[in-house]
Amino acid sequence: MNAHDLSYVLDTFFLLFSTILIILMVPGFAMLEAGIVRTKNVSAVLTVNTMIYAVASMAFLLIGYKLAFGSWENDSVSKWAAFLFQMAFVGKTVNIMSGGVSERTRIIPLILFAAVMAAVIYPVIVNWTWGANMLNGVFLDISSMHDLAGSTVIHSTGGWALLAAIMIIGPRKGRYVGNRVRVIPASNIPLVTLGALILWVGWFGFNGGSVGSISSKESADTVALTIMNTNTAGLAGAIMAAVIVYVQYKKFDITMILNGALGGLVAITAGADLFDIYTPILIGAVGGALVAFAVPFFDKLRLDDPVGALSVHLVNGIWGTIAVGLFAKDISLMTQIKGVVVVGVFAFVVSYVTLFLIDKTVHFRAGDDEQMEGLDLEECGLEAYPEFKRAI
Amino acid sequence: MNAHDLSYVLDTFFLLFSTILIILMVPGFAMLEAGIVRTKNVSAVLTVNTMIYAVASMAFLLIGYKLAFGSWENDSVSKWAAFLFQMAFVGKTVNIMSGGVSERTRIIPLILFAAVMAAVIYPVIVNWTWGANMLNGVFLDISSMHDLAGSTVIHSTGGWALLAAIMIIGPRKGRYVGNRVRVIPASNIPLVTLGALILWVGWFGFNGGSVGSISSKESADTVALTIMNTNTAGLAGAIMAAVIVYVQYKKFDITMILNGALGGLVAITAGADLFDIYTPILIGAVGGALVAFAVPFFDKLRLDDPVGALSVHLVNGIWGTIAVGLFAKDISLMTQIKGVVVVGVFAFVVSYVTLFLIDKTVHFRAGDDEQMEGLDLEECGLEAYPEFKRAI
Amino acid sequence: MNAHDLSYVLDTFFLLFSTILIILMVPGFAMLEAGIVRTKNVSAVLTVNTMIYAVASMAFLLIGYKLAFGSWENDSVSKWAAFLFQMAFVGKTVNIMSGGVSERTRIIPLILFAAVMAAVIYPVIVNWTWGANMLNGVFLDISSMHDLAGSTVIHSTGGWALLAAIMIIGPRKGRYVGNRVRVIPASNIPLVTLGALILWVGWFGFNGGSVGSISSKESADTVALTIMNTNTAGLAGAIMAAVIVYVQYKKFDITMILNGALGGLVAITAGADLFDIYTPILIGAVGGALVAFAVPFFDKLRLDDPVGALSVHLVNGIWGTIAVGLFAKDISLMTQIKGVVVVGVFAFVVSYVTLFLIDKTVHFRAGDDEQMEGLDLEECGLEAYPEFKRAI
Repeated sequence: MNAHDLSYVLDTFFLLFSTILIILMVPGFAMLEAGIVRTKNVSAVLTVNTMIYAVASMAFLLIGYKLAFGSWENDSVSKWAAFLFQMAFVGKTVNIMSGGVSERTRIIPLILFAAVMAAVIYPVIVNWTWGANMLNGVFLDISSMHDLAGSTVIHSTGGWALLAAIMIIGPRKGRYVGNRVRVIPASNIPLVTLGALILWVGWFGFNGGSVGSISSKESADTVALTIMNTNTAGLAGAIMAAVIVYVQYKKFDITMILNGALGGLVAITAGADLFDIYTPILIGAVGGALVAFAVPFFDKLRLDDPVGALSVHLVNGIWGTIAVGLFAKDISLMTQIKGVVVVGVFAFVVSYVTLFLIDKTVHFRAGDDEQMEGLDLEECGLEAYPEFKRAI
Repeated sequence: MNAHDLSYVLDTFFLLFSTILIILMVPGFAMLEAGIVRTKNVSAVLTVNTMIYAVASMAFLLIGYKLAFGSWENDSVSKWAAFLFQMAFVGKTVNIMSGGVSERTRIIPLILFAAVMAAVIYPVIVNWTWGANMLNGVFLDISSMHDLAGSTVIHSTGGWALLAAIMIIGPRKGRYVGNRVRVIPASNIPLVTLGALILWVGWFGFNGGSVGSISSKESADTVALTIMNTNTAGLAGAIMAAVIVYVQYKKFDITMILNGALGGLVAITAGADLFDIYTPILIGAVGGALVAFAVPFFDKLRLDDPVGALSVHLVNGIWGTIAVGLFAKDISLMTQIKGVVVVGVFAFVVSYVTLFLIDKTVHFRAGDDEQMEGLDLEECGLEAYPEFKRAI
Repeated sequence: MNAHDLSYVLDTFFLLFSTILIILMVPGFAMLEAGIVRTKNVSAVLTVNTMIYAVASMAFLLIGYKLAFGSWENDSVSKWAAFLFQMAFVGKTVNIMSGGVSERTRIIPLILFAAVMAAVIYPVIVNWTWGANMLNGVFLDISSMHDLAGSTVIHSTGGWALLAAIMIIGPRKGRYVGNRVRVIPASNIPLVTLGALILWVGWFGFNGGSVGSISSKESADTVALTIMNTNTAGLAGAIMAAVIVYVQYKKFDITMILNGALGGLVAITAGADLFDIYTPILIGAVGGALVAFAVPFFDKLRLDDPVGALSVHLVNGIWGTIAVGLFAKDISLMTQIKGVVVVGVFAFVVSYVTLFLIDKTVHFRAGDDEQMEGLDLEECGLEAYPEFKRAI
């Protein structure tokens, strides 16, 4: 076997391995969200997660991939593996958005948005940054932004879409009563934990695979370093969030600790390949702290986000991208900020318009009665736990 | 390292990777079935899944493997890896059968059947098709059937065994009352979803690993293509099932959507290596539709199958094998049909006789009282959720 | 690519693959323990599992790794991958201990112990055995003990720490009343099963990865053999435990069957690379039997261990290490026994002293009222299943 064929084989194998880890994040997101929402909305959330994966992946296969990369051809790895790896990413942007509007949003408009996001919005952003770079050389060229696995391209994009969606759909009925924020506890903590830990494991494929190659000594080192740093930032995010909630409330709120870990993971996603041991601790710890402070902050703004996705994905997507500019050698802070702003404005505006148009057609928001009864009966025709007696 | 040793190393690594994904389907099946059955039968279902994996794998190690392949020797990959990969398949055939007779079947006879299936029935079928081909050249030679990862060899075989078992064991008490089919809802939708999505991920190892090698450029391409097509058919099956149930009932029944995805995955299993982008969409979509229509059809026939395994595995195992004959170049439809029929007749008849003989000895069917009280107390001596108050 | 670089790449990829499987054991342990404890203590158990992973891994990154191995440098694989693989092990020792003292132990002292274990106690034991061998040539030299993946180094170490902890913390309130042992049933059997089966899958990375290399024909064979034997011992442990509980009680107690499988897996961990087909069946079957008999035995001693960790990890860690001396060619039984004793004395004494000192400072044991109400409210400020009505 010649050297090119060998690296083709190794990198194809490595990309398939990474892809499968990322697809494991589909049950990860599903369990996390199913555990956080109330039992009466669990089946709807699971249906949305399943349908997003199906519809967004199909739309990307049929339309989005070519829009993002210009061509299916690939010399360095199997073109099918290259596609699969990119496809595994696409549903995540919609997952981030759908989780944050759960418990009051109907399924059909979410599916429509998933299709548009995966066929057009996300592919345009990828084209701009990682892909065919149609705007290369134009004044909005952001192709030099360093965003390894998508703190901005994936997480902020999903976060901006979520912000637009929350503004259009509004909060869950009964969430904000006068000046009070009504606490709605997670219904199934083991599922939340399972989901978050599966996401953590899937992240190794997300970030490690984004190095793109493992077939030289240097690239193998970079992959290993990337996975180590990814993990380190998750550890630091969890610890920092635990310290903050314990200092504030003398309780270890496990949902906040897990969201802190996820915040650290989002934050390191832009630059996991760039640092050695200590910087990821700092980036992840700040990520965990940002989650702990952003969650109550968004509630003050009356932006109702049951799973904390704005805090985890939007805030830390921005933080992680900027942190690369602050801490990495030879990477310009201004380039990073420009990338954050350009992607942010585009993702927010286009998502807002898209959501607005869908909303005019099929209406996102479930009625008050449907919310009271739970979305499961109206949307899915079944209950998530029909044999278990409700305490509340 | 010479070229042979290098491909030996790479393919051994790849087979181990694939094997581990397939073994992940053990918790996948277990969670899917535990979520579908009523809470009073959950522990029994989990025990059956665990014991099937243990007993079937052990029987295949001690007896079945050599019967199927004639020898443990292997030149191209580690013989231990080659065994493990095949062993990971064997429990699936019994899993398919046990799920479909759950809620009224006792554990010991199921364990006995698992042992016979893994020691003799399945190995004979493998010998006939993928293995040592003892019938090569004889009039029942079906070794030229193209069945990449077992639409027929695994899924139909399990499905025919299930059909025989349902005929012998009968429906759950209270399932068919006069002309009415009593709906028995799934008790835990998050577990159903988790299980189905884990199966989906495990399928990449199932089908990808069945290519058998990743160590050349061509085989790496085939593996990547196979995994992409596997996924595509799952997407199409889920979408098609969702469309059909929505059109029929204006509800998104998540259990049907997930079974539609699994139907698509079964259907593509025979030919995932043969097609590029579009044909798997068609094969998977038909697979999803077949599930949506077959589930009520089997109920009309009074064949009580709580998890829909006949629809998912038997119907789509047949469809997928025939689809190869319809859509693949250079593969004869008659060869495919002959394989389906020969394996089907053999699997059904031998399973029926085996199940009949076991039934005469230890009786499969749990008594009416045991079914009413739930199998967990009588078979396992414990409840699955002892602290949760029952609503029904 | 030269031969050294190629094996560097392959072994780095293989170690990362193994590491990720091991990290999957974090949700494995978490689900297993969350399923076994009562619903009122589930969030606390999940918090402990998450915080142990975070804190132990961080302590090992900052302090323990260098103490164990003397240096981060590594020629044969990426130093980052080598670290990650070792880091994935470290939390397991504390996990073993924390599970066995659940339902009456507060979170903060457990976190403190995790930090000390990962920063000092475990690294010293690793230095002694797999690592820098500071005692090489001294009379307590145990570096020639064969302990592939840590029957002694990981499992017994965690088990001895657990024994010390149970002695200091005492049993759960209400567990032993007069001469009676009150049975406290597992609250969620699907979670127990899911956790145990995920652990089983993760074990393939644990033991397979401990071979350290896959980049030659011989090492690829050894890895495949190791994974096969690991699986075989798990099968045998499950079957043996099933037979024993069925003979005793005429019931298939799934928690005992799963613990039997885990016992077999612990037992084969010392020597999975040494045997071919049949010996692992014997080692695993004895492992399963030991679990079935040790669980009631420890209750007779009033050592309250809700998850059976003493039986699974301590007893079988010892058995597995000694079994290598009994059955492997060219390995001295005395060397194995010496290793078991030296590590055991060290792990028990140092853990006891550490736990004693922590206990004097922050007190491990939750008060009677807190235990009655459940740890979740006091420690975490939330319930695991707030919407589900309690039956008891």
